[in-house]
Amino acid sequence: VALLFYSGTDRNGTFEASFRSALKKVAPSLEVRTWPELGDANDIRFAALWLPPENLFSKLPNLTHIFALSAGVDKLLQASDLPQDVPIYRLLDGGMATPMSEYVLLGVLQAQRQLQVLAEAQQQKLWKRDTDEPQAKDWHVGILGAGVLAQAAAQRLVANGYPVSTWSRSHKNTALNTLVCLLPLTPNTANILNSRLFDQLPTGASLINAARGEHCVDDDLIAALDRGQISSALLDVFREEPLPAEHLFWSHPKITITPHIAAPTSADVSARYVAEGVANALAGTQPAGLVNRHSGY
Amino acid sequence: VALLFYSGTDRNGTFEASFRSALKKVAPSLEVRTWPELGDANDIRFAALWLPPENLFSKLPNLTHIFALSAGVDKLLQASDLPQDVPIYRLLDGGMATPMSEYVLLGVLQAQRQLQVLAEAQQQKLWKRDTDEPQAKDWHVGILGAGVLAQAAAQRLVANGYPVSTWSRSHKNTALNTLVCLLPLTPNTANILNSRLFDQLPTGASLINAARGEHCVDDDLIAALDRGQISSALLDVFREEPLPAEHLFWSHPKITITPHIAAPTSADVSARYVAEGVANALAGTQPAGLVNRHSGY
Repeated sequence: VALLFYSGTDRNGTFEASFRSALKKVAPSLEVRTWPELGDANDIRFAALWLPPENLFSKLPNLTHIFALSAGVDKLLQASDLPQDVPIYRLLDGGMATPMSEYVLLGVLQAQRQLQVLAEAQQQKLWKRDTDEPQAKDWHVGILGAGVLAQAAAQRLVANGYPVSTWSRSHKNTALNTLVCLLPLTPNTANILNSRLFDQLPTGASLINAARGEHCVDDDLIAALDRGQISSALLDVFREEPLPAEHLFWSHPKITITPHIAAPTSADVSARYVAEGVANALAGTQPAGLVNRHSGY
Repeated sequence: VALLFYSGTDRNGTFEASFRSALKKVAPSLEVRTWPELGDANDIRFAALWLPPENLFSKLPNLTHIFALSAGVDKLLQASDLPQDVPIYRLLDGGMATPMSEYVLLGVLQAQRQLQVLAEAQQQKLWKRDTDEPQAKDWHVGILGAGVLAQAAAQRLVANGYPVSTWSRSHKNTALNTLVCLLPLTPNTANILNSRLFDQLPTGASLINAARGEHCVDDDLIAALDRGQISSALLDVFREEPLPAEHLFWSHPKITITPHIAAPTSADVSARYVAEGVANALAGTQPAGLVNRHSGY
């Protein structure tokens, strides 16, 4: 019995090294192989994956459990050779709740305390005091999403004095200062950050997207920023990653770009989750985090 | 019996208007005058002041209580005509604890999450992922200061997962990632942020100064930033405010400037504090916040 590990963004192998080392501690007898060195592929029953290559699944005839090394499984579900009958599990926390709630809090603090406006003033060497500085208690944050990460972000914001509401297409809160997208990416949520939604927000609202690039219609966001409907955007995710050098987001004065680092997966926590999942599987019980393929999360 | 109001930074009179309106609610019988319209100066027993002009005190022969509209009284104590026998009171909170703790948290989050490095990467359209992103629990914050604002900032940081210690010249913590200056400005603390102190910090520590510009030796800070001893600085206070356009801080790539907005004094809270102080004074009891002129706070 073996597990296949693959991470599509672990360029220097540091995540794999940490993951292997942590897994060795909690599941010393589990053999771990790394794509593309499969050995006898018939042994491989488990896979722990982030952004797997296209032809991976067709080489694994005896796979019984797929562990996504991520909270979102949108890319995984799109794999053309994904076996239809193998259950997929996703990281419900993976050490991501803390960094994600930090990231969202940081973005909200920057918006509330008008750091973008002050940074532009600094470039002009302008001492710009706004006597009407908004207070946290009056800075309304809407969160798109209701999963583990969205809940953690909401709790962190509330603990720091912000009124927080869950925002949905049916339950809109029009008195909103910052909108945070933490949705899973599904056919229902793709392109949700578009002109129509931006126009429903109060003029000057700010945006944080830490979910998936495909949630956002890039041209609509640039247009909303340029006409002042959206005052600033903090973006961690993009349709193509790394974000191509020619993309307009890079140099837009109202956009802050971070390279998909809002909630990095912890190798230690991932290893524990995979080890527990494998232990459950071997004992014949269901691992945590089973994905509903129909809903997409 | 009258009170004289003066604020040296209330250019458009909005603070005065809010202060007068709030004071009217809590102390309707108190007559409020505004410098330089003194009327009969003999009536004036109370003064509520921020950055008063040089000749103010010599025009007020019957002053019995001076209320500083600030946490720091350094400038007030330097007034050449300050009466030696009139007690001075300072704002121990003034609504400043919440915004100050927000500001410090924002600065620490920006440093921990490497926003400065990512902003520089964005300018170069560079997708820069650091796999060794530090966690809050490993990001040590040292606070210079132990007053109401320093305590509020420390509590907020601890609540958000940061290990916090009080840093002093005698109790140094060398494993420090961010140093926050929230000291009162006194002859003992002036110029404390200098090359010697910077060299005692670990290489690459970041600095937040939200106390007074005179705490910082500007040339030493620039030198420490340029040699990488300090990685970034968030500065809210300066030796001269507004910061002169020719000052090197404005265009330094590692310095973020905010225009003394970390902890704005709330007109409402100030009015309540002054009204309570006046009520105490008229009843013959001591108002809160008495300044020890020897210690300077």
